[in-house]
Amino acid sequence: MLIELKKSLLLQDRAKEVIPGITQLLSKRPDQFSLGVWPGYFHRAKGVEVWDLDNNHYIDMSLGGIGATVLGYADDDVDEAVCQVIKSGVSSSLNCPEEVELAELLCAIHPWADKVRFARTGGEANAIAIRIARGFTGKEKIAFCGYHGWHDWYLAANLKQDALGGHLLPGLNPIGVPQSLKDTAFPFRYNNINELKDIVSKNKGELAAIIMEPIRNEEPIAGFFEEVQAIAKAEGIVWIIDEISAGFRLNSGGAHLKLGFEPDIAVFAKAIGNGYPISAVIGKADVMQGIENSFISSTNWTERTGPVAAMATIRKFQKNNVADHLVDIGTQVQKGWNDLANKHGLKIQVGGIKPLSHFSFEYDEAQIMKAYFIQEMLEHGFLASTIFYAMYAHTSEHVENYLSSVDQVFDQMMEFLRAGSLEKKLRGLPSQVGFKRLT
Amino acid sequence: MLIELKKSLLLQDRAKEVIPGITQLLSKRPDQFSLGVWPGYFHRAKGVEVWDLDNNHYIDMSLGGIGATVLGYADDDVDEAVCQVIKSGVSSSLNCPEEVELAELLCAIHPWADKVRFARTGGEANAIAIRIARGFTGKEKIAFCGYHGWHDWYLAANLKQDALGGHLLPGLNPIGVPQSLKDTAFPFRYNNINELKDIVSKNKGELAAIIMEPIRNEEPIAGFFEEVQAIAKAEGIVWIIDEISAGFRLNSGGAHLKLGFEPDIAVFAKAIGNGYPISAVIGKADVMQGIENSFISSTNWTERTGPVAAMATIRKFQKNNVADHLVDIGTQVQKGWNDLANKHGLKIQVGGIKPLSHFSFEYDEAQIMKAYFIQEMLEHGFLASTIFYAMYAHTSEHVENYLSSVDQVFDQMMEFLRAGSLEKKLRGLPSQVGFKRLT
Repeated sequence: MLIELKKSLLLQDRAKEVIPGITQLLSKRPDQFSLGVWPGYFHRAKGVEVWDLDNNHYIDMSLGGIGATVLGYADDDVDEAVCQVIKSGVSSSLNCPEEVELAELLCAIHPWADKVRFARTGGEANAIAIRIARGFTGKEKIAFCGYHGWHDWYLAANLKQDALGGHLLPGLNPIGVPQSLKDTAFPFRYNNINELKDIVSKNKGELAAIIMEPIRNEEPIAGFFEEVQAIAKAEGIVWIIDEISAGFRLNSGGAHLKLGFEPDIAVFAKAIGNGYPISAVIGKADVMQGIENSFISSTNWTERTGPVAAMATIRKFQKNNVADHLVDIGTQVQKGWNDLANKHGLKIQVGGIKPLSHFSFEYDEAQIMKAYFIQEMLEHGFLASTIFYAMYAHTSEHVENYLSSVDQVFDQMMEFLRAGSLEKKLRGLPSQVGFKRLT
Repeated sequence: MLIELKKSLLLQDRAKEVIPGITQLLSKRPDQFSLGVWPGYFHRAKGVEVWDLDNNHYIDMSLGGIGATVLGYADDDVDEAVCQVIKSGVSSSLNCPEEVELAELLCAIHPWADKVRFARTGGEANAIAIRIARGFTGKEKIAFCGYHGWHDWYLAANLKQDALGGHLLPGLNPIGVPQSLKDTAFPFRYNNINELKDIVSKNKGELAAIIMEPIRNEEPIAGFFEEVQAIAKAEGIVWIIDEISAGFRLNSGGAHLKLGFEPDIAVFAKAIGNGYPISAVIGKADVMQGIENSFISSTNWTERTGPVAAMATIRKFQKNNVADHLVDIGTQVQKGWNDLANKHGLKIQVGGIKPLSHFSFEYDEAQIMKAYFIQEMLEHGFLASTIFYAMYAHTSEHVENYLSSVDQVFDQMMEFLRAGSLEKKLRGLPSQVGFKRLT
């Protein structure tokens, strides 16, 4: 029996009319999964369960709110704290006390940090960190590694060449980013200290910041962070760790704590709010004090639900050792993918830290295989793709049931692949590689 | 009897330790009012009532959540809608349907607009609008009028001279903004078409956008907007109206509707969320379609409370003709200020559109007078300053009671001023003019 998506597809059509790109986030665009079969919209989500607009029910084994809902959807403890404070008023002409408590909590978790600034989204938090670093150093150039959002300072890297190909998306045209920012942002690859050294030597005395994700797809090689830190220190460059994806996954705090180093600034979003919009920039006193000399200010940064959600999320995360659970669940999923691929003679590549796992089909037909996998997993009652982000609400049983379905789908997929009939089985469009215009 | 601020002052001390500038918003810094007497923090707010951490109770006749809470604090209808949807989950791997409905609602209110993009704060929404304009035109320079946030594109105006003195704050050092952005943003004053013409002629063929507030302190002179629009059209410049402050004050929508013109893009935040973080960029189809060619994407832009709060706020605003009430209340306040100033022989200057009213003391001792006014109004049970933003929850009776206290405070202030003893009566610090470092 095929899932019916009447209301979901109708709303996608309406969205195309009024929202360029259909969504506010690339990773939630239906065409990133399989346009025509991916439900796109939900009306209810609880734990790991999701109901789409046509009331189809799924277990979400996909992107866990794109990493934002680390505890699970509609977490009782977080939501109760938020609804409680809503009764007391989320805004007034005065400030909410919870932002001070959250700042103290973040500094307590990260003892190297003294000062905190809040925003509401990850991209703007990174932009604040860059402003702080530029203000503190009086310099402008940025060396970066990984994905850091949509802002000018970052996309400027593509003004010269496809520098973001390996970090964000291949083929991204930095349209609308001032040409005057050319040669202000330079990429280096994770674990490649020579690329960073090269940037530093070519831009001697001109770098404001080194910004990087602490970990994403690979483990750091021994000495990598020590070398980055030594360079930053020797050159007077502010070292920023972007914890938006990796923070509160492997441990109760920034991944840098677990990896054993102390940056000058760290940036958090996603997981700390469990789906509510909140982000934070934490840093050492001397660097952060520069905020007072710049102008970094926004009305909506003062509302109350963000800090309240973050405190409830972080405290629950700490109390329940959520990170251990995320690692366990992710380990089970990665092992399952590998075992089932072996069983069916399927070539896949599994990667990512355990709580943020992904795999790729190592075939020319990868996009067709992905679309087929998504489509058939939906029929089995799972939101699933080639990425799996673990949530606290995921249980081993969810993973077992999921893997049992993956087993069946892999089996059928290989049969159709061998028969050369896989593409004909698709009811939706395969996603395109990279960032392409949605028509 | 003097108000006790034990807990409030203690928390301000703690905040100084962990949050540079104490708050996330300049306009909510206690030193912007009167450091030492301004309570700074609230634990409860409802309607126009606010309770500080020491449980002192006030009627808020000040900045109405800095314009964010247009209906009043903890509005039952908005909060019920938000809490209801929280039960259904504020985030999942799929999108929330409410963002499509909100996009359609905004386009229905502004029939010239076809497409909508959401963010969560005003500053980032303006930055999106600038990106869109630059992308659409392939040009980079910006002519602006008014206040538009903390982002690089705007503060860049101060890289050459104190261009923001008349629009944001005097003496602002654009520290941390890349020097390469020098000569990319140029200010013109409201109602001064010649200044705009001058920018256009000096930067012929290089302007991407004209961005301006539709109205703030003065009425537009006849033909001003027609001339701006004609210039934008003739030169192929995108015309952006920043409705973050003025929108949903004078009418149910952007002030530009009431003023009778159609821009290419309009930007909303503050009022549309009644205190919840949500912002929107609306625009004509051809201009907005450029979003799909750029990369403008954020996880926290996809959460659900923002669109739900905005829909509930806008619908209540429309249903109750809230704008008429805001204008009435503001008119009563402005008349009261003028009448009482006349009565007491006090020289003040009243300005602002009625829902966003303000006055200034026309004296050398203005800052001392302001601090005294704030301090004594607190004793009368009012949060009050020289700015008043009307909320739907304000009643004529609130204004009458407020003006009765203003009467007494003005009377006493003039007595002390004449006696030369006013400064000695201060228990807190006067605010400083402009943007100064908070120690």
